[in-house]
Amino acid sequence: MTMDRIPQALWLPVTQMKDLEEHPALRICSGKGIYVYNAKGKPYIDAISSWWTNIFGHANPRITHALAKQAAQLEHVLFAGVIHPPAEELARRLADLTPDELTKVFFAGDGASAVEIAMKMSYGYRRNTGQPEKRRFVGLSGGYHGETLGALSICGHDAFSDIYRPLMPDNISVTGPDCYRCPYDRTRTDCDAECFEPMERTLEERGREITAVFVEPLAQGAAGWRFYPPRYLHKLRECTRHHDIHLAFDEIAVGFGRLGTMFAMEQAGVTPDFVTLSKSITSGTLPLSVVMTTDAVYESFLGDFTELKAFMHSHTYMGNPLACAVANETLSMFEELNVLETNKPKYRHLADYAAQRFAGHRHVGEVRSLGFITCVELVADPGTRTPLDWKQRTGFRIFREALKRGALLRNLGDCIYFLPPYVITQDEITRLVDIAHAAMVEVLGE
Amino acid sequence: MTMDRIPQALWLPVTQMKDLEEHPALRICSGKGIYVYNAKGKPYIDAISSWWTNIFGHANPRITHALAKQAAQLEHVLFAGVIHPPAEELARRLADLTPDELTKVFFAGDGASAVEIAMKMSYGYRRNTGQPEKRRFVGLSGGYHGETLGALSICGHDAFSDIYRPLMPDNISVTGPDCYRCPYDRTRTDCDAECFEPMERTLEERGREITAVFVEPLAQGAAGWRFYPPRYLHKLRECTRHHDIHLAFDEIAVGFGRLGTMFAMEQAGVTPDFVTLSKSITSGTLPLSVVMTTDAVYESFLGDFTELKAFMHSHTYMGNPLACAVANETLSMFEELNVLETNKPKYRHLADYAAQRFAGHRHVGEVRSLGFITCVELVADPGTRTPLDWKQRTGFRIFREALKRGALLRNLGDCIYFLPPYVITQDEITRLVDIAHAAMVEVLGE
Ligand SMILES: Cc1ncc(COP(=O)(O)O)c(C=O)c1O
Ligand SMILES: Cc1ncc(COP(=O)(O)O)c(C=O)c1O
Repeated sequence: MTMDRIPQALWLPVTQMKDLEEHPALRICSGKGIYVYNAKGKPYIDAISSWWTNIFGHANPRITHALAKQAAQLEHVLFAGVIHPPAEELARRLADLTPDELTKVFFAGDGASAVEIAMKMSYGYRRNTGQPEKRRFVGLSGGYHGETLGALSICGHDAFSDIYRPLMPDNISVTGPDCYRCPYDRTRTDCDAECFEPMERTLEERGREITAVFVEPLAQGAAGWRFYPPRYLHKLRECTRHHDIHLAFDEIAVGFGRLGTMFAMEQAGVTPDFVTLSKSITSGTLPLSVVMTTDAVYESFLGDFTELKAFMHSHTYMGNPLACAVANETLSMFEELNVLETNKPKYRHLADYAAQRFAGHRHVGEVRSLGFITCVELVADPGTRTPLDWKQRTGFRIFREALKRGALLRNLGDCIYFLPPYVITQDEITRLVDIAHAAMVEVLGE
Repeated sequence: MTMDRIPQALWLPVTQMKDLEEHPALRICSGKGIYVYNAKGKPYIDAISSWWTNIFGHANPRITHALAKQAAQLEHVLFAGVIHPPAEELARRLADLTPDELTKVFFAGDGASAVEIAMKMSYGYRRNTGQPEKRRFVGLSGGYHGETLGALSICGHDAFSDIYRPLMPDNISVTGPDCYRCPYDRTRTDCDAECFEPMERTLEERGREITAVFVEPLAQGAAGWRFYPPRYLHKLRECTRHHDIHLAFDEIAVGFGRLGTMFAMEQAGVTPDFVTLSKSITSGTLPLSVVMTTDAVYESFLGDFTELKAFMHSHTYMGNPLACAVANETLSMFEELNVLETNKPKYRHLADYAAQRFAGHRHVGEVRSLGFITCVELVADPGTRTPLDWKQRTGFRIFREALKRGALLRNLGDCIYFLPPYVITQDEITRLVDIAHAAMVEVLGE
């Protein structure tokens, strides 16, 4: 591996920089299809699609062409009181692809920014409709919505948020689903989302001060791909309606086919009041995020100019034409290549083959799959589901071993997961799973 | 003008959408050099560089080429424990261009995200060095740092933040410089930054709970391009040092030559502990933001992995290779085209000609210039400096008139300003100022 020691001027994210002395950063110089390459041309399978973004492969010619075409036409223009064809087209297409109630599209860049916008829209709606006391947000344990201070305040991860508590607004965290370690002793097949109970109680008791509940629908990514049943979302939709609380689905990680359907909300059969999108919207090419919402929210901000009710929030590059053009090409490829269908045999093979390869190992707690994601949770003891000692960094060591073998399989703690670009073939899936398995055996033994 | 009525699915930023019934959005279909064009090919001078970003003109062939080249090589790869040549090069070049003390470069996408990162780094440093009580941030009246909730909490604009107060951390706003309406009755030539006094008092009284002061150095953009003297920043640097408080310069709007020097901090002769950059860093092409800081801050986060001291903050698209490649090309153009020198006669002409054209009008309060920005502040009465009645929307009406005449000159309240791409010629500057003047006369009379 060609790896540099600590890069001079760079400070990398979620990385203990001192660690790089021992475990140098991977230096990637090019990409093609499912592979990224180091300076010597060694290929690595991009097994988690570069943080869950890439779907059509690196340097995809259609995407590259759409980008170049838009760059020659209009690379960017400010988006205040100005519109342009790529943004108009994208907004229209997103409105067409989502439930009828979601009519309005607001752009940003970072995913976290979209979450903050949805928060501000929800509370702005309360102000505009005479309910200023509804000012708190609810998030789930294990939930992840980004790391600007507002978004962070609804995350359920102490590792990200603990030390920043004194800087954050005081929102509400509720224990959410955790199917692998179900406290109600249910299995995925005999469950009625009993775990909705803490949420029900919170909304009952504090509903009057709550404006919105934010969840990652069906799959909590950063928590280690915890999948949970639609039933939870049915109950949540009903209960939030009952207490006049907005429901926000953060589909930043799961939107655009990752769970098998275009969006998780379809699969759940639930329409929220807000949806946030990003990541795969540009097929892993450029930052672009989106908030979608309803006429009811939008209309609460309408008025004469002098009433000062307009929604005041902007980011410089919102509606960036290059990112919109790439997103439009991404949507065209979904249609033309019949992606959702083509993906099915691939992710079935991924689920089956990973289960076959990993299940039964004395440190494999669960092999779980939903759509094009398969996650292997490693534990000290599958019988008791006791976690491994995090200080052993088992997942990280497997990640390092997999790198040697040609897969970039960045772990989430002691979860090893496969979330590859959709253009991966069944043979490549087999190879990827084999690499991961070999890396696990290297670290944990047979 | 080809203008649509309210676009169906789009919700535009800082726009009362109902307003579009009467004042439709401008639909832009292409751009070239200093012009953007509507569907019929009518050109508009991009007089404020698409929200202060564009410096080398739209569809600039060098930028377009750099973008295409990088897209064919590596459009994106995740940035956690991974590095790539465009990010390494950009970090190195930024470290070279800025004062020696600013050694470390951390990437994000939206400008607001960079501000939040600097906030979290500053407070994280306090936690890491045993000063957890230092947890508040200070911003200036009129200051603007973006609109995610953390960044918003240090903005000094009620229009953006008032209704969201209940959602925001409780930070400190201090009355800052306002040279046109100096409460100390000084002029720009006989001033010793007497207006530093409220800041001095705040840092004296509350220094123990303050971790950082954020300012836009020398020029507050969103406040209507309020320029203030370096002396204020000298005092601020001395006083923050004295009270062990970080100083953060938000150069998102002014960096990359806008004020005449590459960065405002050079011109001020002050080195802060944090600098945020964005906007023109990609020459107005793609979202990319940056936080730079010192070894002292960086090193406070170093430790063994199990100490859990790593700086935990990420955005999916941070370090995006496409944006980095375009930023590197932007920096190359600065060097090769000797931009800072070439700009001088241009912005001198802008300042002189605008002063000549606007000064003396019965509603022109001040024509002020700094570097490549000239701002005309309109008032009810220049003698008393009484503002115009905001409900009359004078600035906005002038903006609409200028559109008819071929300039996209988005106002800031009743300030009309010129902040064009650097590639504008002296003749085009003359035309732009003439258009703005004609638009003003149309609205306010001779
Ligand atoms: C000085 C300053 N800081 C921060 C920002 C926020 O950047 P963004 O709009 O990209 O979030 C801006 C944007 O105008 C700015 O002018
Ligand atoms: C569900 C979810 N929401 C929000 C975010 C934040 O997006 P960004 O990292 O672009 O700020 C992420 C990023 O991983 C995410 O997975």
